[in-house]
Amino acid sequence: MLGKLMDNVCAKKPLIHNITNYVTANDCANILLACKASPIMAEAEQEVEEVTLICDGLSINIGTLTGNKIPAMIKAGKKANELGHPVVLDPVGAGVSEFRTKATLELIDQVHFDVIRGNLSEIRALVSGVGSSRGVDTDGQDEIVNDIRAIAEFAKTVAGALGTIVVISGATDIVAAADKAYAVYNGHNMMSMVTGCGCMLSSITAAFLAANIDDKVEATLASVCAMGVAGEIAYNRLSKEDGNATYRNYIIDAIFNMDGAKLDAMAKYEEIK
Amino acid sequence: MLGKLMDNVCAKKPLIHNITNYVTANDCANILLACKASPIMAEAEQEVEEVTLICDGLSINIGTLTGNKIPAMIKAGKKANELGHPVVLDPVGAGVSEFRTKATLELIDQVHFDVIRGNLSEIRALVSGVGSSRGVDTDGQDEIVNDIRAIAEFAKTVAGALGTIVVISGATDIVAAADKAYAVYNGHNMMSMVTGCGCMLSSITAAFLAANIDDKVEATLASVCAMGVAGEIAYNRLSKEDGNATYRNYIIDAIFNMDGAKLDAMAKYEEIK
Amino acid sequence: MLGKLMDNVCAKKPLIHNITNYVTANDCANILLACKASPIMAEAEQEVEEVTLICDGLSINIGTLTGNKIPAMIKAGKKANELGHPVVLDPVGAGVSEFRTKATLELIDQVHFDVIRGNLSEIRALVSGVGSSRGVDTDGQDEIVNDIRAIAEFAKTVAGALGTIVVISGATDIVAAADKAYAVYNGHNMMSMVTGCGCMLSSITAAFLAANIDDKVEATLASVCAMGVAGEIAYNRLSKEDGNATYRNYIIDAIFNMDGAKLDAMAKYEEIK
Repeated sequence: MLGKLMDNVCAKKPLIHNITNYVTANDCANILLACKASPIMAEAEQEVEEVTLICDGLSINIGTLTGNKIPAMIKAGKKANELGHPVVLDPVGAGVSEFRTKATLELIDQVHFDVIRGNLSEIRALVSGVGSSRGVDTDGQDEIVNDIRAIAEFAKTVAGALGTIVVISGATDIVAAADKAYAVYNGHNMMSMVTGCGCMLSSITAAFLAANIDDKVEATLASVCAMGVAGEIAYNRLSKEDGNATYRNYIIDAIFNMDGAKLDAMAKYEEIK
Repeated sequence: MLGKLMDNVCAKKPLIHNITNYVTANDCANILLACKASPIMAEAEQEVEEVTLICDGLSINIGTLTGNKIPAMIKAGKKANELGHPVVLDPVGAGVSEFRTKATLELIDQVHFDVIRGNLSEIRALVSGVGSSRGVDTDGQDEIVNDIRAIAEFAKTVAGALGTIVVISGATDIVAAADKAYAVYNGHNMMSMVTGCGCMLSSITAAFLAANIDDKVEATLASVCAMGVAGEIAYNRLSKEDGNATYRNYIIDAIFNMDGAKLDAMAKYEEIK
Repeated sequence: MLGKLMDNVCAKKPLIHNITNYVTANDCANILLACKASPIMAEAEQEVEEVTLICDGLSINIGTLTGNKIPAMIKAGKKANELGHPVVLDPVGAGVSEFRTKATLELIDQVHFDVIRGNLSEIRALVSGVGSSRGVDTDGQDEIVNDIRAIAEFAKTVAGALGTIVVISGATDIVAAADKAYAVYNGHNMMSMVTGCGCMLSSITAAFLAANIDDKVEATLASVCAMGVAGEIAYNRLSKEDGNATYRNYIIDAIFNMDGAKLDAMAKYEEIK
């Protein structure tokens, strides 16, 4: 079932506007091309609305954020909202500094995001930052790291509160809407040794959404599974002399060679009830 | 004959000043090194003139453009013009937004470019942007995409109007001066799946020009052929598990291992009369 | 002995704050991960102090410098100094423009650097820039390029004058404190064909220092040897079709697979007396 959603990306070739960081922008562009979508990177406030207008989806990533990019992100996001384009937020480093946390909260306040993807601490910053701890047991924060069910409940709560889909990346990835959550068992822990795996996932998630606008939860799930499957395929190609640089290339290569049938054959996920 | 021009790059090792985008800057630096030129990336308005002074050529690329970079590009361009250094423009995304189109036109107005390289729609934006459609059949725009002769005529018209050499990248690449045009049949369509192939070509074109300052048209032709040949060599190295990330690396590797003799043996081009 | 220092990086997994250039930021992030450290790239003046606070070391690199980054670098550096975190400076292009030379001198004036790493001309700019030629025989500058002993003496003089450790990268690398200097014979000249080898070394040096805060000279020496050994291992993996792009990946891969025992087995250095 997820495979069909991936094949739709290949068939529709959505154009994705990325306002992103300079550390992983090249990888984000290449992985979008790998899944047969196309990237545009544009961040000047003067042009972001026009750029978004010709695109099919928007990915906003706050890595290497500077103050002048925030108005551009908001303008692009509002325009994408108007147009009904899917918008993804990757709140890189939210919680690390007041600047990033505030920027994230301002973005969430001004723009509707279809998907917000981060690690557990970044997603926590979204809610603890506004003082709302509903559903978030602050005292027990550290305990939930290895408790998939607890993370899924937390993700559903955040998804409900923000009206978005939440992806929490980790050893097991969680994809949650307000009323349901999935655990994804694909991936390999060596992915944490490659910079930008999260950024790349956020970018392709925008493409999966753009190509499957009526199935946003499933499209997000397909995207998360595809990235995990790529991590597995790439890992299996490694020789003993290869390390994380070759692994990065093989992950993108694996997306390039993946189709819906392969995704369906390898995706491992279940609904958490 | 083109081979000699490539060997000159290797022998003279020109230093190329790049004012470029952050998506593909690393690839541009590495491909310059691959052809034995050297890169400097510097964009602060305070230093661009001094940097250009010690270089042999300048490559200006408007990907991920922001407003503050335009004055630096103009300063560097004017200085390079004064010094007689070759200057290449890659108008990434011209036509996509008014901001980029205007920036491109301002650059062209203020700086003399020896070569302007883009895809067909970017080159079209250079002329439609100023309201001049001389030689550009607006009504028939879409028809010329697959008509090499029509693209060549268009490129010659733009080259004549702007006093530059025009490179139009596509399935067949066109290299045109006002009075002559070449079609280059090298390359592989998988190159369109690698971000930055155009940017990389623009950067090495500056190096080819710098090393062959009296043969600018032929140097540009050699550069375009070399990039296409690299795409062919790299493609032939791919295993069935490789994708666009490995392909990117192999393209740069192919330039690294290419010499004039190999270029002469593999270059496929003809003058379009 | 150096091996133990590398194993400490792996064991302590220091988090390194990088304020760096966009050309090589991705490689710097991946090579930090390769040695089991972690990268954070953050340059907004509003957040750099908070980011540094949660990190174990700071790497400042002035490639693609713009004026607005200098105050952020100074703020982060001062905070790291307060916290006793190691701070590394990579004065990319110092001496090329007044802007970069002045920025470098201002950084050195405002921040204490534990290590400054550059090529010979960059390190020269640190002292010639302030008009101090004590120990630097300006007239004989070009002669010392191939004279390891002369470079070592120069490096010791600069180290003494600035109260730092100086690394001068070249065919033979020099690591110097005021009172002693080492020559490192590891590495391969093809490393000069890969953009960012110096930047990567500066980043991992911050990690080596952070994990070995009481042995800064030896930690720096270990880092320089490790990078050189990686260059040798990577070179030996190359096929005749491989070039500098694959070499870049293999260098990072080699760090990924290196441990203290391998470093000890391959490190080649001696104290210059």
